Amino acid sequence: MNFIVYLAGQIHDDWREQLEKLAKEKDLPLTFVAPQTNHDRSDNIGEEILGEQPDKLHKDDAASDINNFRTQLLMQKSDAVIALFGEQYKQWNTAMDASCAITMNKPTIIVRPKSLIHPLKELSNKANVTVETVEQALDVLAYVFD
Amino acid sequence: MNFIVYLAGQIHDDWREQLEKLAKEKDLPLTFVAPQTNHDRSDNIGEEILGEQPDKLHKDDAASDINNFRTQLLMQKSDAVIALFGEQYKQWNTAMDASCAITMNKPTIIVRPKSLIHPLKELSNKANVTVETVEQALDVLAYVFD
Amino acid sequence: MNFIVYLAGQIHDDWREQLEKLAKEKDLPLTFVAPQTNHDRSDNIGEEILGEQPDKLHKDDAASDINNFRTQLLMQKSDAVIALFGEQYKQWNTAMDASCAITMNKPTIIVRPKSLIHPLKELSNKANVTVETVEQALDVLAYVFD
Amino acid sequence: MNFIVYLAGQIHDDWREQLEKLAKEKDLPLTFVAPQTNHDRSDNIGEEILGEQPDKLHKDDAASDINNFRTQLLMQKSDAVIALFGEQYKQWNTAMDASCAITMNKPTIIVRPKSLIHPLKELSNKANVTVETVEQALDVLAYVFD
Amino acid sequence: MNFIVYLAGQIHDDWREQLEKLAKEKDLPLTFVAPQTNHDRSDNIGEEILGEQPDKLHKDDAASDINNFRTQLLMQKSDAVIALFGEQYKQWNTAMDASCAITMNKPTIIVRPKSLIHPLKELSNKANVTVETVEQALDVLAYVFD
Amino acid sequence: MNFIVYLAGQIHDDWREQLEKLAKEKDLPLTFVAPQTNHDRSDNIGEEILGEQPDKLHKDDAASDINNFRTQLLMQKSDAVIALFGEQYKQWNTAMDASCAITMNKPTIIVRPKSLIHPLKELSNKANVTVETVEQALDVLAYVFD
Amino acid sequence: MNFIVYLAGQIHDDWREQLEKLAKEKDLPLTFVAPQTNHDRSDNIGEEILGEQPDKLHKDDAASDINNFRTQLLMQKSDAVIALFGEQYKQWNTAMDASCAITMNKPTIIVRPKSLIHPLKELSNKANVTVETVEQALDVLAYVFD
Amino acid sequence: MNFIVYLAGQIHDDWREQLEKLAKEKDLPLTFVAPQTNHDRSDNIGEEILGEQPDKLHKDDAASDINNFRTQLLMQKSDAVIALFGEQYKQWNTAMDASCAITMNKPTIIVRPKSLIHPLKELSNKANVTVETVEQALDVLAYVFD
Repeated sequence: MNFIVYLAGQIHDDWREQLEKLAKEKDLPLTFVAPQTNHDRSDNIGEEILGEQPDKLHKDDAASDINNFRTQLLMQKSDAVIALFGEQYKQWNTAMDASCAITMNKPTIIVRPKSLIHPLKELSNKANVTVETVEQALDVLAYVFD
Repeated sequence: MNFIVYLAGQIHDDWREQLEKLAKEKDLPLTFVAPQTNHDRSDNIGEEILGEQPDKLHKDDAASDINNFRTQLLMQKSDAVIALFGEQYKQWNTAMDASCAITMNKPTIIVRPKSLIHPLKELSNKANVTVETVEQALDVLAYVFD
Repeated sequence: MNFIVYLAGQIHDDWREQLEKLAKEKDLPLTFVAPQTNHDRSDNIGEEILGEQPDKLHKDDAASDINNFRTQLLMQKSDAVIALFGEQYKQWNTAMDASCAITMNKPTIIVRPKSLIHPLKELSNKANVTVETVEQALDVLAYVFD
Repeated sequence: MNFIVYLAGQIHDDWREQLEKLAKEKDLPLTFVAPQTNHDRSDNIGEEILGEQPDKLHKDDAASDINNFRTQLLMQKSDAVIALFGEQYKQWNTAMDASCAITMNKPTIIVRPKSLIHPLKELSNKANVTVETVEQALDVLAYVFD
Repeated sequence: MNFIVYLAGQIHDDWREQLEKLAKEKDLPLTFVAPQTNHDRSDNIGEEILGEQPDKLHKDDAASDINNFRTQLLMQKSDAVIALFGEQYKQWNTAMDASCAITMNKPTIIVRPKSLIHPLKELSNKANVTVETVEQALDVLAYVFD
Repeated sequence: MNFIVYLAGQIHDDWREQLEKLAKEKDLPLTFVAPQTNHDRSDNIGEEILGEQPDKLHKDDAASDINNFRTQLLMQKSDAVIALFGEQYKQWNTAMDASCAITMNKPTIIVRPKSLIHPLKELSNKANVTVETVEQALDVLAYVFD
Repeated sequence: MNFIVYLAGQIHDDWREQLEKLAKEKDLPLTFVAPQTNHDRSDNIGEEILGEQPDKLHKDDAASDINNFRTQLLMQKSDAVIALFGEQYKQWNTAMDASCAITMNKPTIIVRPKSLIHPLKELSNKANVTVETVEQALDVLAYVFD
Repeated sequence: MNFIVYLAGQIHDDWREQLEKLAKEKDLPLTFVAPQTNHDRSDNIGEEILGEQPDKLHKDDAASDINNFRTQLLMQKSDAVIALFGEQYKQWNTAMDASCAITMNKPTIIVRPKSLIHPLKELSNKANVTVETVEQALDVLAYVFD
């Protein structure tokens, strides 16, 4: 039995690679999927495929069409979701993806630093588990195979 | 036919009162419901009902239990959702509520200033309509009765 | 027991008024709801609420945001759907609304002239009943109270 | 991870073969399924299996029974849907399939020429992405594996 | 709190009137709905509304379109279902309605004589309660208000 | 806006009456529904309606048919669920009802004494809120109208 | 792509074997599942596993527990359902299974002789296709791979 | 066709190993999954992953976060559920899991000794089958492949 895990969240460091490496070390039967992690590509994908847009708002909207297509397809195939919040940026996509996953009854883990306890309290409360590090998130996944 | 509209979003100004006043002026058959808008009460409700908690994290988690009970009950009764984002704060609850509403197929309007176009682009794209002012949100609701 | 009936379809004649008149004559406890039937208002509502758009495509898309908000809200409240196809125009909104209603398990009646039997054959087959006149559609509704 | 993609839409040119060829060139793990693309066979399948019908309407209805069986089975197995509209014909099946897919939460791409922007505006607005060429549709699919 | 109860089953005696009379005597807040109980009208409704059909099969199919529209609408509004089987006739509609109700999670009571225990055993097993008389069925409904 | 609240749980003291009294004092627009609280009637209802059963197991099963019909009907009509566990008895029905409510996405409050923290830990974790007294449960409900 | 097809219906001749043979001849990627077709085993399975029951009714109910477990498991795994009605017997299980499948949105084919057109008219109307022979049912399945 | 079976219930003897051994002897294509059966690990997993908690209640709640993540993931992947109740302990998790499975329409078998007939009567009534031994549960599973 192999599980597919969607990795929502910030794309500014290599936390997904860390997680995959830890999973490989433990030889866990997990396949990871994720949003586009190349920030420029994610921002420009609308114009790359659909051509130049009349203004910034519509460039963003065109990119979102395609990013949301990708996320919807991959999240529906997933058995569990991990959503990581960092200390910078608005990260509303991370909140959106985590809330969408929880509403679709996907088992969900939130990873966030202690400094974000208060602003994330209601979302943490709805998720199954909230942890502070990628290692802890992997420990939760590993526990399923224990 | 009366519709119930859930007003998600920031609780730092009187936008809900403005919206209700506009709806009353147009005599629209709308009932508005909302999260707890008294910030202190929302933060303290866990300890008020459940007693003192061992630390800040658990005080927050206890409050979230009760805030999430309220939101889940009211949102399930709602026919439509408006989610307003302001320029300050993390507002992850607003993103969480909007995403939950969209995933539950509730018709959803997002209100946000131009400055937030980029960070909200994927969520705006999933919502039915994105506007910049409370007046515009009310215009969308009024259009249903047109 | 009162039923709400959504009237999807062309907005170029007064078929909705005819239907409502027939229902009133038979004193049936039905409430009818519908898309915006003022064609210009339906086409311009995006710019009316959201302001001028950069081009025709985005004017249309802005109008659609708000028309789809209205339809989603009203159709979810409805107990049954009638979709009328006339001989002119593409009428893809009528096909879209009928298919959406059927997929949501709303009991659905299609009204179409004999000339459209062939191009509508798969949609007619999925609907509960296909008739040729508004009077027949009303007869089907009246039968529920028989 | 292999995805199944349902290709709804007109059956008057070889756009499905083009798409499959492009996918093969990029070595994408996609399986394509589709309605019956032999027009005569699609129109006659009812009488071929069920025998002669009393008139044209019932010949069409018998064919639709079987075409709808096929579409329902294949679309439920699909992970995503592409619906292509050409400039001719009513194409209500394409609108029906796209709307059904969207209502079932299948990620959906619409392909249509610029000339159809206005009559398809509400359906485009509900789909995830609207593009103008088969190449662009394939680019959206390819982005998921990026 | 008023409940709507759908009364599926044979239309050859006055069991529905008996049940309604018993409910009225006990002053229970119940509204009863049912299929068309005039057998001829039920058989002929297709031709009455849609005009003469080419043969017996299509006359039956036209009637079924309209009978199924009625049942789908009324059953979706119902809070509970009672399905009564008599000793004569095939009564496949009764089995169809009971199975549909159970699959839709409607609380369901089956009424059948002892002689039908064996052929109805799997359906009885899926229903909530199986009784032998209309009085017992009413007792079950009355118990909800106890 | 009136909410219906299902009161699952032990039937050996008057906690439901206490709760209703508190709600009336605060003038909250709540309607309470519950399982049969007369223990003997709940145990005997099968034989009372269906007649004598061949043994104890089948007497119990006949009663359960009717108790489960009642619970399913009332819980589906409810907007929220309160489940109270006392210190005695197995109370598997309470656990069953709470778990069913949570799986159906009904907002759920568990009331249990401190002594039951450990054996109820997973169920408490899935519920929205866990409190120790009926007064606290009412405070949570009252907060919704705050 | 392999499809699983549930074969509901009478167990008094070898129609399932015929169907499987035809599918094999056409080399169709289909897996067939079915209820217990050994009539005695189906009737006695309750007592075989659970021991002697107090009377005929409870022997039947015990068998139904296990037959319904089997059908629920296999039908949920199925992509399509074929339900065959013969001229003898009540065949309420066939009607129950067909109606359950249709309510679960499984694409469904009914096979029945001409003599049963009238009593099966509403069920036939809800199914996707109704045919008269096993060969025709197989032709419908084969058309999906055409 | 391989089925996944979730084994809910007490973790104080080796009933799961017995069941798996019996399944292997009969060469049944079944994969069994289960909650954490090491009691200490199940109780301590919260502190093991999340670090020391402020008190016993929060230690339990942290463990439940992770146990519920595991159960939700594995139960959603399962095709059937067996829930075994022993004579000792509260076993509310077993009742919670069985009720959750039934509400999710998973075919469910309950295993319990005769002494628990009365307190489990409503849950047994909602499950598909109730047996007294692990051997009988395996016989029910084996019957599906008969």
